Amino acid sequence: MSHLDLGRGGEFDTIRQVVAALGDQADGIGGDCAFLPCGQGWMAVSTDTSVEGVHFKREWLSLTEIGWRAAAAALSDLAAVGAGEPRVLAAITSPERSEVVELMRGVGAAAEASGGVVVGGDLTRGRDLSLTLTVLGTTGRLVTRGGAQAGDEVWVTGHLGLARAAVRSWIEGREPSPAARTAFAHPESRLAAGHWLAGHGARAMIDLSDGLAGDAGHIAGASGCSVALELERLPIAPEVEAAAIRAGMPPAQFAALGGEDYELLVVVPPGFDPTGFGRETGVPLERIGRCVESPNSQPVAVMLLEGRPLVLSGFDHF
Amino acid sequence: MSHLDLGRGGEFDTIRQVVAALGDQADGIGGDCAFLPCGQGWMAVSTDTSVEGVHFKREWLSLTEIGWRAAAAALSDLAAVGAGEPRVLAAITSPERSEVVELMRGVGAAAEASGGVVVGGDLTRGRDLSLTLTVLGTTGRLVTRGGAQAGDEVWVTGHLGLARAAVRSWIEGREPSPAARTAFAHPESRLAAGHWLAGHGARAMIDLSDGLAGDAGHIAGASGCSVALELERLPIAPEVEAAAIRAGMPPAQFAALGGEDYELLVVVPPGFDPTGFGRETGVPLERIGRCVESPNSQPVAVMLLEGRPLVLSGFDHF
Repeated sequence: MSHLDLGRGGEFDTIRQVVAALGDQADGIGGDCAFLPCGQGWMAVSTDTSVEGVHFKREWLSLTEIGWRAAAAALSDLAAVGAGEPRVLAAITSPERSEVVELMRGVGAAAEASGGVVVGGDLTRGRDLSLTLTVLGTTGRLVTRGGAQAGDEVWVTGHLGLARAAVRSWIEGREPSPAARTAFAHPESRLAAGHWLAGHGARAMIDLSDGLAGDAGHIAGASGCSVALELERLPIAPEVEAAAIRAGMPPAQFAALGGEDYELLVVVPPGFDPTGFGRETGVPLERIGRCVESPNSQPVAVMLLEGRPLVLSGFDHF
Repeated sequence: MSHLDLGRGGEFDTIRQVVAALGDQADGIGGDCAFLPCGQGWMAVSTDTSVEGVHFKREWLSLTEIGWRAAAAALSDLAAVGAGEPRVLAAITSPERSEVVELMRGVGAAAEASGGVVVGGDLTRGRDLSLTLTVLGTTGRLVTRGGAQAGDEVWVTGHLGLARAAVRSWIEGREPSPAARTAFAHPESRLAAGHWLAGHGARAMIDLSDGLAGDAGHIAGASGCSVALELERLPIAPEVEAAAIRAGMPPAQFAALGGEDYELLVVVPPGFDPTGFGRETGVPLERIGRCVESPNSQPVAVMLLEGRPLVLSGFDHF
């Protein structure tokens, strides 16, 4: 067993217990994707479950949106390793067989939007709606969470906090802003961005599914250096501010704790040149921090607000 | 969209609707595995869900057995295409995080028994226990459901009907015989058998998950020829007889309708020589029928009992 360098949290403690129990029966668990040798390169593969009542509520989304979102969340793991040519398998458990076609329209559209195609799946009856999406993509170069070095720069794609703002609005009984609703219901997987970054020197990458704070901690744990993020630098969508104020915290802190943005956090060597990224991918890219030595302590992610460290934690499904 | 030549049944009607709705967003759906080009050969991949209350009841099985059975069911799809070197991803939805380690012990043991390893997964909270296993394996030669030709012979591995006998016993409030219980709780994936058969001329293959009647129908539909099976020739375990008598039907009919045997049904050219199969795989292999022209009708699977056709249908999850 190798590469099990996860951050903190109950879900990750369980994964560590599983890996300890399996011994030689497990290999490579803990990253965004598993990598299987394939020709001269690698086949990256990841599986990701979305459950009604845990990851979404039916009242919030149409069936097509539920399918899109589940597929986009899985495809995001391929983006995080720079893999392309996605192939998607959809295992759907549903109380109503009649729902399956609309769910799969969303899955198919998300696959197509990433340049991919649906190649298989499984249909099962069950009390709660649940979608497990498995995605496969090819890559010539291994980019994992584990390659960051002290002195490297930390960048992030897109804008943060919108998905959390949408969920907060729904929980408060409000309709989310259109931008927040779209971010939650129709996230775009960053495959083109991940591919560009992998081809331009990315040393480590992760997608923001657990939230910036938690996911930066995974990079730190896997790489053996700490990650210092300056919250003032976070690219926050304007629509996040109102939700953050209602939650009683600064917008940057609200966004750093928000899960499921499905943006990419990428570590690059000093002097990284982003020229061409925006033009070729259509996605913003901002430098938000750096990697630092952690000589006398565990590698962690540190959030700095006006230069002072904040203690935050990520989103844990269990 | 290609290769969508499924047999009859409500689940398969839904799959056909999905494929029609997806158009070019889908490719290759409908077989035991999807095939992705990989070096000089193929990566076969399949995903398979087991849900509490649908595929098993908790009272019947230990957590380790639930994990083993879910993994073995998925690995059986790799066996059906002759693929080897299995890699397993386990997406587990469970109401109790504390159950996950025991479930994964079963998954890991099943992977190891097939010469494979667990490479990833996902853990999620949910009301009902559900396991979606994704399996990947490599193969140099494409063996699908679609290569059977009129005149070919039809063979089957192992013994049939035990899993159904176990379920029937539980439903009747009896304890299954040890052999029936083992067949249901601890099925062995036929990867070595599938690999041997793929390397010795198999023209078409399928694993018996929906039941012999339904799965033979898939071979017929995909190949464009009918399949005639002689029920007298079915290799039926002795423990099946009592359950069949209680169900009020001949043991062969009981076994032909039983799902989830996870044996292989294989079509080979006339003159196929099984020498070495038993010695190398440790599994029995019996000839049980042949492929025939169906010039004026849909290709179907026909079951013959004492030379007379019976109308049967397979196991449909929905």
